[in-house]
Amino acid sequence: MKIVVDAYGGDNAPASVISGTVQALQADSTLNVVLVGDVTKLEPLLAVESYDKARLELLDAKEVISNEEAPTEAIRKKQDSSIVKGLRLLNTDADAQAFVSAGSSGAVLTGAVLLLKRIKGINRPALAPILPTVSGGSTILIDCGANPDCKPLNMHQFAIMGGAYAQAELGVNNARIGLLSNGTEDKKGSELTKSAFQLISADEKLNFKGNMEAREMLSGDYDVIVADGFNGNICLKSCEGTAMSMFDIIKKGIYGGGLRAKLGYLLLKPVFKGVKNIMDYNKKGGAVLIGLNKIVVKSHGSSKAESIKASILQAKRLVDKKLVEKVTEVMSQC
Amino acid sequence: MKIVVDAYGGDNAPASVISGTVQALQADSTLNVVLVGDVTKLEPLLAVESYDKARLELLDAKEVISNEEAPTEAIRKKQDSSIVKGLRLLNTDADAQAFVSAGSSGAVLTGAVLLLKRIKGINRPALAPILPTVSGGSTILIDCGANPDCKPLNMHQFAIMGGAYAQAELGVNNARIGLLSNGTEDKKGSELTKSAFQLISADEKLNFKGNMEAREMLSGDYDVIVADGFNGNICLKSCEGTAMSMFDIIKKGIYGGGLRAKLGYLLLKPVFKGVKNIMDYNKKGGAVLIGLNKIVVKSHGSSKAESIKASILQAKRLVDKKLVEKVTEVMSQC
Repeated sequence: MKIVVDAYGGDNAPASVISGTVQALQADSTLNVVLVGDVTKLEPLLAVESYDKARLELLDAKEVISNEEAPTEAIRKKQDSSIVKGLRLLNTDADAQAFVSAGSSGAVLTGAVLLLKRIKGINRPALAPILPTVSGGSTILIDCGANPDCKPLNMHQFAIMGGAYAQAELGVNNARIGLLSNGTEDKKGSELTKSAFQLISADEKLNFKGNMEAREMLSGDYDVIVADGFNGNICLKSCEGTAMSMFDIIKKGIYGGGLRAKLGYLLLKPVFKGVKNIMDYNKKGGAVLIGLNKIVVKSHGSSKAESIKASILQAKRLVDKKLVEKVTEVMSQC
Repeated sequence: MKIVVDAYGGDNAPASVISGTVQALQADSTLNVVLVGDVTKLEPLLAVESYDKARLELLDAKEVISNEEAPTEAIRKKQDSSIVKGLRLLNTDADAQAFVSAGSSGAVLTGAVLLLKRIKGINRPALAPILPTVSGGSTILIDCGANPDCKPLNMHQFAIMGGAYAQAELGVNNARIGLLSNGTEDKKGSELTKSAFQLISADEKLNFKGNMEAREMLSGDYDVIVADGFNGNICLKSCEGTAMSMFDIIKKGIYGGGLRAKLGYLLLKPVFKGVKNIMDYNKKGGAVLIGLNKIVVKSHGSSKAESIKASILQAKRLVDKKLVEKVTEVMSQC
């Protein structure tokens, strides 16, 4: 089994990707990676690194798709890009089981949907990040942006896929599923979420806990939070933005608080570091695109080596834990 | 001019409402209040307070609408409730210009929409809270929950009303308006927001800054953030939830961090207090329902006296600043 990695994805590529890949290879001796990108540029960068060369292949791809390009057009035109060539390898090499990229979200999602096959019964694949919780646990948010416009049926399938992902990645059987809404009462919601509520609550195989508010996102009361891609995106970015803003406000307070505040900060530094560590979920891996016949992990655009390493190991874990097979099995019973 | 106040709204009513009303009367010598609720219960509570009795009237209402009741049914059935009687007074007493309640959001919104008149041209009133920004300023979010299902036209009107509100409350002319979306690019969004984008950007009277991400909510780059009621609600509650969760995580870190962390906390206490003060936007007033012929301020359900006082003074300020007249004028030019 091999993990295909986009060497030219993300703000810090290719240095961060090379470094992250090498670290992943060192961390897991059963990992095999195919690094996709301009080989003439990658080779000298890899020459100074120390890793098991038998477990790293290179696949040449001269083009790079930037964040600024229209995804569908870029995927169609740039056939020699790291994203297109990496995804195509999943179709031609049976050993290539997952693709990891920190590149343009739009291009990775569009490319994956266009080039890979959907799992039978799944209408729309969904993007699912794992968020931290106050209690030190994890919560899966599905969808966080692959589908800005959804039908109730899609959201029912997100619940099913989220449950399978929770089992594979978090080891949670019978995941507690919440539906992101504007209130906790059963009757709350938009027309879309009210219809999704009916479908999900009627599915006896799911452990559906009903509507939940965005306020409870990080509470740890849910293993899986189901949302359409637009709302999931808003929820995720609100969390990110608020966390960043609070750090900013605290920092300003410390700078303006004189010697007393600076001393306080020094003493509390380990605590702040711990909080940052909990809130920075990107370090622990990427968002997984679920619903296709191969695993796709989208690492954050600003990923450093640590995040790339985590995303590669996450991709391998999900192949090992047979996430695709699990979703296929559940869908075959629907 | 009188501000009508629901004495039986909120988790801490009527004590918090009485105390907040008395504080507001003390703070503004031109303020007149009508307190609506069970007079036999309110009179003894007021007897121990010190305030200018000439400026406080009581209006008897024996019933209370709880958060658990279905709003439309409760408004129809409980004609002797503080919400229904308070809102009706705005129709019968020309001096009664605004209604303040910390009661059931659903009942206050439904009651206001059913019992008051809409401003000509406005299809849907919208609920607008004011959020803090990192730079110490304020941002208006409109709508945050009155309309879970919107049409593009509604969102265009939210932008117009938000602009008028920014002028009246924040003193900002030509408010910078952002549209909450899943990306900053013009083409990003759901079908709904993409259509709303067209309408808002075509309106030359608006200073439209395009799509914005939820991550920028508290950045201070926008005076008005336009969203449908479902997305706005999710965004608002994500912010609230993340802020609360971060305080929780920091608190846990301090408790678990031994003497060093506790000492650090003591030194940083003023900074934390400042941060809490910035993030706790509910203390500064309520969310305003805009688009009706009278002002309605919805104070947070957990409002203490300080928030009630702020909401009453805010309501008076918006009457003084002629928010209703401003929206009426702008709409007459559309």
